[in-house]
Amino acid sequence: MKTVVVRNIKRADADVVKRLGALGTSTVHEAYGRSGLMKPYLRPAWVGGEAAGTAVTVLAQPGYNWMIHVAVEQCKPGDILVVGCTTDNTDGMFGDLLATSLMARGVTGLILDAGCRDVKSLREMGFPVWSRAISAKGTVKSTLGAVNIPVVCAGVNVEPGDAVVADDDGVVVVRRKQASEVAAKGEKRFAEEDSKRQQLASGVLGLDIYKMREPLAKAGLIYLDDPEAD
Amino acid sequence: MKTVVVRNIKRADADVVKRLGALGTSTVHEAYGRSGLMKPYLRPAWVGGEAAGTAVTVLAQPGYNWMIHVAVEQCKPGDILVVGCTTDNTDGMFGDLLATSLMARGVTGLILDAGCRDVKSLREMGFPVWSRAISAKGTVKSTLGAVNIPVVCAGVNVEPGDAVVADDDGVVVVRRKQASEVAAKGEKRFAEEDSKRQQLASGVLGLDIYKMREPLAKAGLIYLDDPEAD
Amino acid sequence: MKTVVVRNIKRADADVVKRLGALGTSTVHEAYGRSGLMKPYLRPAWVGGEAAGTAVTVLAQPGYNWMIHVAVEQCKPGDILVVGCTTDNTDGMFGDLLATSLMARGVTGLILDAGCRDVKSLREMGFPVWSRAISAKGTVKSTLGAVNIPVVCAGVNVEPGDAVVADDDGVVVVRRKQASEVAAKGEKRFAEEDSKRQQLASGVLGLDIYKMREPLAKAGLIYLDDPEAD
Amino acid sequence: MKTVVVRNIKRADADVVKRLGALGTSTVHEAYGRSGLMKPYLRPAWVGGEAAGTAVTVLAQPGYNWMIHVAVEQCKPGDILVVGCTTDNTDGMFGDLLATSLMARGVTGLILDAGCRDVKSLREMGFPVWSRAISAKGTVKSTLGAVNIPVVCAGVNVEPGDAVVADDDGVVVVRRKQASEVAAKGEKRFAEEDSKRQQLASGVLGLDIYKMREPLAKAGLIYLDDPEAD
Amino acid sequence: MKTVVVRNIKRADADVVKRLGALGTSTVHEAYGRSGLMKPYLRPAWVGGEAAGTAVTVLAQPGYNWMIHVAVEQCKPGDILVVGCTTDNTDGMFGDLLATSLMARGVTGLILDAGCRDVKSLREMGFPVWSRAISAKGTVKSTLGAVNIPVVCAGVNVEPGDAVVADDDGVVVVRRKQASEVAAKGEKRFAEEDSKRQQLASGVLGLDIYKMREPLAKAGLIYLDDPEAD
Amino acid sequence: MKTVVVRNIKRADADVVKRLGALGTSTVHEAYGRSGLMKPYLRPAWVGGEAAGTAVTVLAQPGYNWMIHVAVEQCKPGDILVVGCTTDNTDGMFGDLLATSLMARGVTGLILDAGCRDVKSLREMGFPVWSRAISAKGTVKSTLGAVNIPVVCAGVNVEPGDAVVADDDGVVVVRRKQASEVAAKGEKRFAEEDSKRQQLASGVLGLDIYKMREPLAKAGLIYLDDPEAD
Repeated sequence: MKTVVVRNIKRADADVVKRLGALGTSTVHEAYGRSGLMKPYLRPAWVGGEAAGTAVTVLAQPGYNWMIHVAVEQCKPGDILVVGCTTDNTDGMFGDLLATSLMARGVTGLILDAGCRDVKSLREMGFPVWSRAISAKGTVKSTLGAVNIPVVCAGVNVEPGDAVVADDDGVVVVRRKQASEVAAKGEKRFAEEDSKRQQLASGVLGLDIYKMREPLAKAGLIYLDDPEAD
Repeated sequence: MKTVVVRNIKRADADVVKRLGALGTSTVHEAYGRSGLMKPYLRPAWVGGEAAGTAVTVLAQPGYNWMIHVAVEQCKPGDILVVGCTTDNTDGMFGDLLATSLMARGVTGLILDAGCRDVKSLREMGFPVWSRAISAKGTVKSTLGAVNIPVVCAGVNVEPGDAVVADDDGVVVVRRKQASEVAAKGEKRFAEEDSKRQQLASGVLGLDIYKMREPLAKAGLIYLDDPEAD
Repeated sequence: MKTVVVRNIKRADADVVKRLGALGTSTVHEAYGRSGLMKPYLRPAWVGGEAAGTAVTVLAQPGYNWMIHVAVEQCKPGDILVVGCTTDNTDGMFGDLLATSLMARGVTGLILDAGCRDVKSLREMGFPVWSRAISAKGTVKSTLGAVNIPVVCAGVNVEPGDAVVADDDGVVVVRRKQASEVAAKGEKRFAEEDSKRQQLASGVLGLDIYKMREPLAKAGLIYLDDPEAD
Repeated sequence: MKTVVVRNIKRADADVVKRLGALGTSTVHEAYGRSGLMKPYLRPAWVGGEAAGTAVTVLAQPGYNWMIHVAVEQCKPGDILVVGCTTDNTDGMFGDLLATSLMARGVTGLILDAGCRDVKSLREMGFPVWSRAISAKGTVKSTLGAVNIPVVCAGVNVEPGDAVVADDDGVVVVRRKQASEVAAKGEKRFAEEDSKRQQLASGVLGLDIYKMREPLAKAGLIYLDDPEAD
Repeated sequence: MKTVVVRNIKRADADVVKRLGALGTSTVHEAYGRSGLMKPYLRPAWVGGEAAGTAVTVLAQPGYNWMIHVAVEQCKPGDILVVGCTTDNTDGMFGDLLATSLMARGVTGLILDAGCRDVKSLREMGFPVWSRAISAKGTVKSTLGAVNIPVVCAGVNVEPGDAVVADDDGVVVVRRKQASEVAAKGEKRFAEEDSKRQQLASGVLGLDIYKMREPLAKAGLIYLDDPEAD
Repeated sequence: MKTVVVRNIKRADADVVKRLGALGTSTVHEAYGRSGLMKPYLRPAWVGGEAAGTAVTVLAQPGYNWMIHVAVEQCKPGDILVVGCTTDNTDGMFGDLLATSLMARGVTGLILDAGCRDVKSLREMGFPVWSRAISAKGTVKSTLGAVNIPVVCAGVNVEPGDAVVADDDGVVVVRRKQASEVAAKGEKRFAEEDSKRQQLASGVLGLDIYKMREPLAKAGLIYLDDPEAD
C-alpha cells in the first residue's frame, strides 16, 4: 500500500451529482445498468438521511482514523467521504467531532466500511453516515493509509471524484465520466415510473402494463385451480 | 420445481385472521404451541408496521420478480403476499411500484425472504414489508417460479391460504385449519396477561404469581450472600 | 455451572454511575482505556434509549427465562439487568411483562445476549433493552441458571455490581472499583471535546488541533497532485 | 407442535434410493429441476462421506436430543435420519453413542440442522453426518419434539419417507413419489456428462459443445482487444 | 486495559491436565457441568490435532502480535497459549515462526480468537492451533496488550493457569482449582459410556438403557401409525 | 455493466508468477506491503491445493455461468481464472466439467466469489479451487457478464493479467507491473525467515531476535509476579 495523499482530483460535475441525488439509489442503480451498488450490509446510521457527492476516498487501517483527518483537508463543498478498510472491522472510526469538521467544509455525508459512533449526535446534527456497524469503540491516530487512491468499499471499487448517491436503500457509485449519461437515463426512467405508478394505483396489473402474459405462457407457466377449493 | 400458478385457493377465515392480527405475533406464537415463527433475520422494512392476512405464496428465483407480478393477480383483499426464494439472496425484489399495485388490490403486507427497496416510499405509503435485507439492487422479469404452492420462507413451510401475522416482533404463520382454535387460545392468553401486567406493575413478583419458589427450591437453587458485601 | 443466587452484592456508587451515564458509552469507553465494550451485535431494541445502572447478572440457558424471574427479586432501584446465555441464542427471553416488573422495582434497563420481544410495548413504556435479536419466540421457565455470578455477555466478563452504561452506540461495563476514577477521566475528556468541537465547527482542521502534520511527515506520508486533474 | 411419533411410514423404494445415491447430489439436484437442495451451511462432519437413504424425520428443541433417541427405534436399514430444530442452534446434539446405535440398526447417515460432536470417532467409525456446526456442547433429554412429521431442515421441507442423498457437495431431498422419475433422469444426465467430459478433456470448448456462440452474439456480447496489449 | 505481564502464575496440576486431555473436550465439558466451552466458531487449523495444557493468556489488539512474542517467554513445557483480542478480527496473528518458538519451549498448542496462517507448515510440524479464521494477512509488532490477565476468548473468561483441552470438537476451559475434580468425574463418565457403547452396538436401544419410555409417556408423547402406509 | 470480452490482455511475466507461487501467499502478501489479500471467507475446496497464475477475470451474474464458458477460450497455459459476482451468492457455478476444460487449456486454478461443486472430483483431478461456499446447486447459461474487465473478487479489485497466488492461507493478487519487484522482496524475506526459524527452534526468543525488549519497556510494559503464586 502506498502511503500517499492525492490532491486536486478531478470531480464529477456538481450539477450532475445533484440530479443523481434527486433520483435516489434505486433509480440510479437501474440507470447505470445495475452496476455500482455497495453491498447491503452497509446501513444508514439513522433512518431518512440522504446524500449525494463527489468521492474523496480513504484507505484506512482497522482501528486507526489518522487518514480520515488527513482527508478532511482534501474535501471541498459537495464532496462525500468514502472510507475503505484493509481488514473487515467494526470499530467506531468516526464520530461527532469529525462530522463537525466535515460539515464545516461542506461535505454531504460519509460512506464507511467500518463502524461509526455518536449516532445520536449525528442524527441531531443531520449528518448522514452509512456504515457497516455502530460501535462506541474508538480508534487511535497513528498508522498511515492513503487518500484519493482507488478503494474497494463494501464490494465496489471507488475512484476519487466518482459520483456517489446514498439513501435508505443503500449506496451507489457512478464513474465520474459516466455520471452525466446515467443522470439522463435515470430521469427518463423516473418519469416513466411515475406514469406506471398511477396506472398500478388504479388497479391495472403489471402483467398487462409490462405485457407479460405472452412471454409467461411461452416460458411454460401453467394455471391450475386449487382442487381443494370450493 | 413446477412452474405453476394455483388459482382460487382456500383461505383462512377473514374474521379469524383479523382476531389473530389484534393479538400480535408473540401471543399467536404462544397460543400456537410455539410453532410457525419465521427466523428472526426477517425484519420490518420500517418500524411500527403491522399486518395480518391470508397467504398467497410465491416461489421466486433470486434476482427475478416475474412471479410477484403474476401473484398480484391472484391476490384478494385481506391477503398477505409470502415470497420464498430458491437461493439465499438480498436483491431488492420489491419496491414502491409493486406496493402500489398490491395496495390497489387490498393486500395487507409482504413477507419476503430476499431484499426490498424504496423503503422511504413504503414507509410513507404505509405498506408494511418484512424482508431479509434492504437493497437498491433491482431484479429482472424473465425466470419462472410458482404461485400458491407450499413455500419455505425464513424457515417456515407456508401453505397457500394460511393465516399470517406480522409486526415488530417478527412473522408467525398459522395453518388455515387451526387458525380459529389458535385465535381463541390467544385471546384467552391475552386476557390473562393483562391481569398479570397489573399485578407486576404494583410490585408483586413473578416468583409469586407463577408460584415458582417451590419448584426452584426443588430443582436445587441455592441462595447465598455475597461474602464481599457489608 | 453452579445453580446459585448471590444476594446483597456490593454495588458501584449510584452517583458515580449517574455521572458515567451522562457521559455516554463512547466517552466512558475512551476514559476506561478502551476496555469493557460489548460486541456491536448487541443493538438497542428501540432507537434513542439510554440507561446506566449497577449490574445484576444472570446466566441463563437458551430458551429459558426462569432465572430472569429469580433475578427480579434481587434488583434494587438503579440496577440494570445483564443476562448472558450458555449458548448463542435468539429466542425472545424477555417481553413487556418482565419489563413491567423491572420498572416497578426501579431497574433502569436490560442488557440481554439473546432475543427480546414486545418491542413496540417496550418503546411505548420507555424501558430500554439492548439485545442480540428481536424474536417473538417465547421461552419456558424450567431450567436453572445463576444470578449474580460473573457472566460473559456479548464478549465482556461482567461482575455483579459493575457499572454499566448503554446508549445508541452500544454497552460499556466498568469494574465497580474503577468506576469513580473512570467518571473523573471521562468528564475531563468530555470538556476537552467540547472545546475541540467549537474549533472544528469554525473550520480549524484536526490536522492542526492534534498537531498531526509533523508525525504524518515523519511516518512517510507523501502528497501528490492528481496527474489527470487540470 | 404436536408431540407425536408416527410409525410405519411409507418409504421411497430402496433400489431407487441406491441409484440416486450413485448419482450424487449435484446430478440428482439437476435431475430434480434444481429443487430439494438444503442450504450450503450444512457441511459434512468429515470429508469424503456419502450417504443415501429414506428419511426418518425429527423435530427437536435446541439443546435436547430426547427425540433422536425416540427416532432410533423407528429406523430401519436403509433409512437416513433428518433432524430439524425449532430454533437456530449449534449444540452438539449427536455423538458417537447415538451413531453406534444408528449403525446397529442399519441407518446410513444423519442430516442435522444443529451441531454434532465426537467427529474424530464418527470419522473412524465411518458414520457420515452433515451438520450446521461441530460443538462439544452436550444436550439433555427432557423436552418433547416429534418424529416422522414434515420438518424444515436447512431450508427444505422434508416429508417422512423422502429420498435423501448427501455427499461432499451437500444434501438433496427428493419427494418419495418422484424418486423413481428423478433417478431415471439423473442417469441419463450422468451418461451425457461423461461424453462431454471426454470432449472437454481433448480441448473442445463448451462454447462449441453447448452451441453458445450464436445466442451469445444475439444477447449482445462484444469482443474487444486489450488496447494496452502488444 | 492494563499493559502488564504477570509472571510465575500458578498452574493447574500437569498430571490432571494430561488426564483431562485423554478424556477429550466432550467428556470434560459434560463432567464440568456443561461449562467452559468456547464458541464453535473456533475451529482447528488442521483436522486431528489435540492438545491439553495450562493456560498462558494474552490480550492482543487486532493486527498486532507483539504480546504473543512477549508471552512466549512466560511459557513453560505443558502450557497452552490462549489469545483473546480486543475487537473481532481475522488477521493472521500467528504463523510457523511463532509455532517453532512455542514448540522449542514445550508448549502444547494455541487457542486464538483471531486468524492464523502458514497452516500447511503447522500441519506438517504437528503444532495444533484452534482459531477463528485462516488468513495470510500478517500483523505488526507495535501495540501493547497484556499477558496472564483474565481474558475472554471465544466467549469464555480464561484465567491464567486454567486447564485447557482442545480437539476436533472444540476447546474447553476448566478452572485451575476444579481441574482435579472434573478429571475424576470425567473418567467415571468415560467408563460408563464405554459400557453403553457396547450395549448400543449390540442393538439395545437408548430408550431402554436410559429408561426413557416412562418419562416420555408421562410428558405426553403419542405414537400413531401413518394413515398413508399400508 | 458492459457485456464485453477483452482479448489478448497483457499478462504478468510467467517466470515471476512462478517465483511468487513458490513463496506462498503469506510471504507475497508481506512483500507486497500487506496489500492484495482477498477476504478470508474464500476457502480452498480441498486442503493442500496451491496455484499461481495470471488472472483472466470474469464478472458473472449469480446463478449463471455462461461467462465462465466464454472465458475458457480466452485462457492460456499459466492463467488462473478469477470470478467475481454482481451479488453475494453461493450457487455451485463451477464443477468438474468446467475443470476438465480448464485443465485441458493449462489453467492452474480457479478463484470464485460464489459456490463450487463436485469437490470430490476436483480433489481427485487435482484442480485447485478457492470459493466462498460448496453447493450442489447448479446454474444456467443465459445471462451475460463480462470477461477481462477489472473485477472485485472477495474484496480485492483484480485487473486482467495480474499475478495471483493461492494456497491454504488464502489468495493474494499482485498488480502485473509490480509482480517482479514483489517477487524479489519476497525471496529476500523468505531467506531471512529461514534463518530466524533455526534460531527460534534452538530456543532463542523473538524478543531478542527482533530486539523488542527496549521498545516494549519504552511503550510502558510492566512485569509483575502473580501475587497468588508461591
